[in-house]
Amino acid sequence: MNAEILSVGTELLLGDIVNTNTQYIAKGLAELGINVYRQSVVGDNRNRLRKSMEESLQRADLLIITGGLGPTKDDLTREVAAEVLGKQLVLDPDILSGIQVFFDRIKVPMEKSNHKQAYLPEGAFPIENPNGTSPGILIEAEEKIVMMLPGPPRELQPMFDNQVKPYLTKYAQGIVKSKVLNIFGMGESTMEAMIEDLIEEQHNPSIAPYCMEQGLILRITARAQEESVADAMINSLEKKVRDRIGEYIYGVDHESLEAVVVKALKSKGYTLSVAESCTGGLIGASITNVPGASEVFPLSLVTYSDASKVNLLGVSKDLIKTQGAVSKETAVAMAKGVQKVAGTTMGLSITGIAGPGGGTDKTPVGLVHIALAFEGKILHMEKNLLGDRNRIRHFAAKHGLDLVRKAVKEQ
Amino acid sequence: MNAEILSVGTELLLGDIVNTNTQYIAKGLAELGINVYRQSVVGDNRNRLRKSMEESLQRADLLIITGGLGPTKDDLTREVAAEVLGKQLVLDPDILSGIQVFFDRIKVPMEKSNHKQAYLPEGAFPIENPNGTSPGILIEAEEKIVMMLPGPPRELQPMFDNQVKPYLTKYAQGIVKSKVLNIFGMGESTMEAMIEDLIEEQHNPSIAPYCMEQGLILRITARAQEESVADAMINSLEKKVRDRIGEYIYGVDHESLEAVVVKALKSKGYTLSVAESCTGGLIGASITNVPGASEVFPLSLVTYSDASKVNLLGVSKDLIKTQGAVSKETAVAMAKGVQKVAGTTMGLSITGIAGPGGGTDKTPVGLVHIALAFEGKILHMEKNLLGDRNRIRHFAAKHGLDLVRKAVKEQ
Repeated sequence: MNAEILSVGTELLLGDIVNTNTQYIAKGLAELGINVYRQSVVGDNRNRLRKSMEESLQRADLLIITGGLGPTKDDLTREVAAEVLGKQLVLDPDILSGIQVFFDRIKVPMEKSNHKQAYLPEGAFPIENPNGTSPGILIEAEEKIVMMLPGPPRELQPMFDNQVKPYLTKYAQGIVKSKVLNIFGMGESTMEAMIEDLIEEQHNPSIAPYCMEQGLILRITARAQEESVADAMINSLEKKVRDRIGEYIYGVDHESLEAVVVKALKSKGYTLSVAESCTGGLIGASITNVPGASEVFPLSLVTYSDASKVNLLGVSKDLIKTQGAVSKETAVAMAKGVQKVAGTTMGLSITGIAGPGGGTDKTPVGLVHIALAFEGKILHMEKNLLGDRNRIRHFAAKHGLDLVRKAVKEQ
Repeated sequence: MNAEILSVGTELLLGDIVNTNTQYIAKGLAELGINVYRQSVVGDNRNRLRKSMEESLQRADLLIITGGLGPTKDDLTREVAAEVLGKQLVLDPDILSGIQVFFDRIKVPMEKSNHKQAYLPEGAFPIENPNGTSPGILIEAEEKIVMMLPGPPRELQPMFDNQVKPYLTKYAQGIVKSKVLNIFGMGESTMEAMIEDLIEEQHNPSIAPYCMEQGLILRITARAQEESVADAMINSLEKKVRDRIGEYIYGVDHESLEAVVVKALKSKGYTLSVAESCTGGLIGASITNVPGASEVFPLSLVTYSDASKVNLLGVSKDLIKTQGAVSKETAVAMAKGVQKVAGTTMGLSITGIAGPGGGTDKTPVGLVHIALAFEGKILHMEKNLLGDRNRIRHFAAKHGLDLVRKAVKEQ
């Protein structure tokens, strides 16, 4: 079964709101194994709405339309759909009294305009709406299915979950399961070069790379008649991927890098303190966003000035003078310093040039030194990061967390 | 001029991500008075992408396409657009060497796959991309304009703002100017109640509230033939708004709360240190995201454990025992402690229960104590914040910054 999603609303065309309904429906259909080949948005305009519906119905078996079911003159979806399908609109007295009950409950008189929400194309079924006045509408006609759902997300989402998805289950093609591998420390093109053959060979399960806000991910998706079969397919492909790029995979599905780090520290009984300079608190902020982080994370020092590096971390003034605040030597001294001050198993430090100013030939914008002190050893990492101040800082923080992850894992 | 926006990416069809690019572009076009009649999404599929482009070009004068410009085999936008417009793809050596420079800077070898990002349809112009490897592409052909922009928002947004919008200005109908008022410390419905009449009366200039990721904003938009007229219209309405809710407006347009705070501290010659508990570094991270913050911000201590509050800030063990780590008394001692350790004009502290665990009847999840020590005085604020851990922490950090903003302003 092929589906299209059509959203109706001038506020979407003007960019006043972001189209979360389409994503919500698309995700639900993907879970059912129903393919979505196109998503469209049109405004509250009769001609353009009609054309768009006609085109979609030529291509798709299932058309889900959101928005334009309200009581105002702008709301045209019900009318135009009836026209396109060649149906009359008929008053449904049960819906009308349902709307009346709704207004009685909120103690507001019903407007005359709400009457139009009680009309359905002949042969259509209403889809109950516990959160608003307009029911959804389901029509099965000429081997096509058309559904109209209200625009407000708090009406649409429960209606979709509780009524639309169960109805569509009969059209679901087996089971579709996905697993996301979260990756850090390699670029998209490098990753693809390392697993290109897997991406190209595989159709079921399929594997696809995405560059998301939180970093690179690989999504493995399997379609099967039974869940256990889909799981086995995913596991087998995941193993192949891990054999190639396993060291860069820090977690699966919704696991964040900081959650993985906190979990790993807990499992080993380690504690971590951090001395941050260019990241200014980002590492602390991300670690402490993990519930229960306090067990492993007592202290972080944001030693932004040279004086604070000297006074609080015991970094020598001379060292900063001769090697520079952004150097391997200073990073190492900071890591040892914070480990000592906090009395933790591990001490992580980060110092760098986040820009846009402050760069020199020797220490350009993007240069970051990261050091990790633990068990008498020192790990050091030097990175040249690209992008604006915000990106450099976020990547620097992630590299720091990833260094901790790898160090703990190797123990 | 009529425009359409076409987003390319299977991750959108699957509902993996929400389509924020389309909203961003739609909003920008609306500001220029360019009508958008349709928005579409198709996957990484050659045939469907071609059909969609052809249809859009029949309807629209301007087609903006996002996504599918990456280096992988899935990325088809460049190729398919050339095909639809009947153009050859030609290697642009300048772009190729630009990509090479990008990889040299990050010290990663360039993959062969990246070469394809250096190809342009003949007669097309590259649009510079300071934040990634793929340039945007501009083609003017047969009275149509086609633009292809990269999918990642952090590449697309600056490209759209700095290059696409200025280019499109010549097609703008009159001048549309907007000013954004950034607001903190009041809820959306409260704000609306205080300026409801202004929102309803005003059409040009219009005023509209939005609840954005970074907080509440009011957008004033004026349309006029000349810029000076639009400015005057905006200023007059802004004054009316400020008379009502001025104390909650911390900045305009892209000014962040932390940038306003850093600027205010600089102008007074003040310095600030922070002792963070529940926010775990968020305040430090946001302040240090402002270029030049080092002048006013030498140090922040993330004293997450009680022991670190005692050892580093000199908070008395007894005080924590009798009053609790989340109390006015501890917050005050932390603020005084960090002010002393760092030797700064101001010392800010924050301690609270971010949840989801750790709440009690006396100190429920969401309770936050904030204290600011300066010039021998103490300001204290107690807040009961709602939401999940992430929201509580971000709001707590913002309240802390806002306390500093107000305190500096009153000097």
